[in-house]
Amino acid sequence: MMLVDGQSQDTVAALDRGLLYGDGLFETIRFVGGNAPLWARHMQRLAHGCERLRLPAPDPVLLWREALAVTQGIVDAVLRITLTRGIGARGYAMPAVPHVTRIVAAFPLPEIDATAYRDGVRLHLCETRLAEQPLLAGIKHLNRLEQVLARAEWSDPAIAEGVLCDPHGNAISATAANLFAVIGDVPVTPRVHRCGVAGVLRAELLAALPQAQVRDLPLAECLVAGELFLCSSVRGILPVQAVGDRVFAPGPVARAMQAHWRGLGFTWEQA
Amino acid sequence: MMLVDGQSQDTVAALDRGLLYGDGLFETIRFVGGNAPLWARHMQRLAHGCERLRLPAPDPVLLWREALAVTQGIVDAVLRITLTRGIGARGYAMPAVPHVTRIVAAFPLPEIDATAYRDGVRLHLCETRLAEQPLLAGIKHLNRLEQVLARAEWSDPAIAEGVLCDPHGNAISATAANLFAVIGDVPVTPRVHRCGVAGVLRAELLAALPQAQVRDLPLAECLVAGELFLCSSVRGILPVQAVGDRVFAPGPVARAMQAHWRGLGFTWEQA
Repeated sequence: MMLVDGQSQDTVAALDRGLLYGDGLFETIRFVGGNAPLWARHMQRLAHGCERLRLPAPDPVLLWREALAVTQGIVDAVLRITLTRGIGARGYAMPAVPHVTRIVAAFPLPEIDATAYRDGVRLHLCETRLAEQPLLAGIKHLNRLEQVLARAEWSDPAIAEGVLCDPHGNAISATAANLFAVIGDVPVTPRVHRCGVAGVLRAELLAALPQAQVRDLPLAECLVAGELFLCSSVRGILPVQAVGDRVFAPGPVARAMQAHWRGLGFTWEQA
Repeated sequence: MMLVDGQSQDTVAALDRGLLYGDGLFETIRFVGGNAPLWARHMQRLAHGCERLRLPAPDPVLLWREALAVTQGIVDAVLRITLTRGIGARGYAMPAVPHVTRIVAAFPLPEIDATAYRDGVRLHLCETRLAEQPLLAGIKHLNRLEQVLARAEWSDPAIAEGVLCDPHGNAISATAANLFAVIGDVPVTPRVHRCGVAGVLRAELLAALPQAQVRDLPLAECLVAGELFLCSSVRGILPVQAVGDRVFAPGPVARAMQAHWRGLGFTWEQA
């Protein structure tokens, strides 16, 4: 089910700036049994994104009401909230008074193979590099062609995700998940201030792992890490089994974070 | 008037990948008296963009027919063609068989002050830098948040455009136009293989100026050029009068290119 500006419909204006320029933001939020354990963090990131893009922030109470309406009857749901700068005069200039378009849509959670949580997933090492744009880094904006191109690098269904690097060869993230490496005993996740998205589950894990470091993570260092795992607010914690030829085993930090994930109320996956 | 996939309508699916990810391309084409003098170059760039983004290229004959239909009755029209990867399963992966969404829309040409062509325009020097992404450079894709942010840097209506640099301090373009500088006697336009858009009028001018150089153009060099002008397939040739405090005068190359522009059939502006 889908609401556009509160109305039950499934279309938007063809001249919406979300389509013309990718001028907007989105959130993808997992619901389980009518609740969204990471809702507050999603709202925090969305508000931050609105500030960065100079979009008027939506009322979270209104979003929550619409989210409940569209997810109703779906036990395990993925909610997508999209906000755009709406319709304005032609051209890049922002309208003086933007009329934000608000799309709230729910989908059943895609099936995820339980062995992925137990044994880990295989990753492709992407040739696509993330460009460095500090003005857009961290936020979940609608300009996602880099991710589309990176995801098109493999079609083998046995490969679940890809590792994306910045132009200097630092590992940044997967195409639709953040990355943690355990170096020695220290969990490390890449900085996302020049490229990448500041994932909501990443923020949750950083709060749960006070010893974790947020720093540059050269790919070479990442590939010799003791453990590697992905986190996504839709898919949870996925240990990495392999990046190309390099093999990993699920480790204690990934297992602890899977337990943390389940503790949040996401009971579906069993590692 | 607007056609979406050949139908007279003004909406698209809210789950179109053009809106979800900016997954598509566009062209903005000037029509004058039922003709588009740069049509062939626009079609060439669009086909090249489709190849780069792995989109099936549309039939130019079909596009031409739709363009004539929507511009009918508008003497001076701007046509926007938007192609997106349509609707697919959720996620960044490209659908195996994409159903491209095709939007063909016409607008009356916005009024442009004739003194801009005679005396030149004032430019803002943008703080926003264009990120370097060779995989997307040159093509006119839908990921345009950088241009939106750059254009938001000024609101003074006396300033017509902004100069955008790459992260190394090379001048690249304006927010919605390409840039030529005349250094000594040589017209120079920046390379657009790491960022920027390969403008259709830029290509036309390069063909008309065999002595022109396409190379890196450090901003410092650009600011001491003998002449500076912008080119846009909608607005034509705009001499630059000032970039911030630095003052320029319209020069002979800009005047020659304005004559070339008029020679193409764009008779509206008189420099």
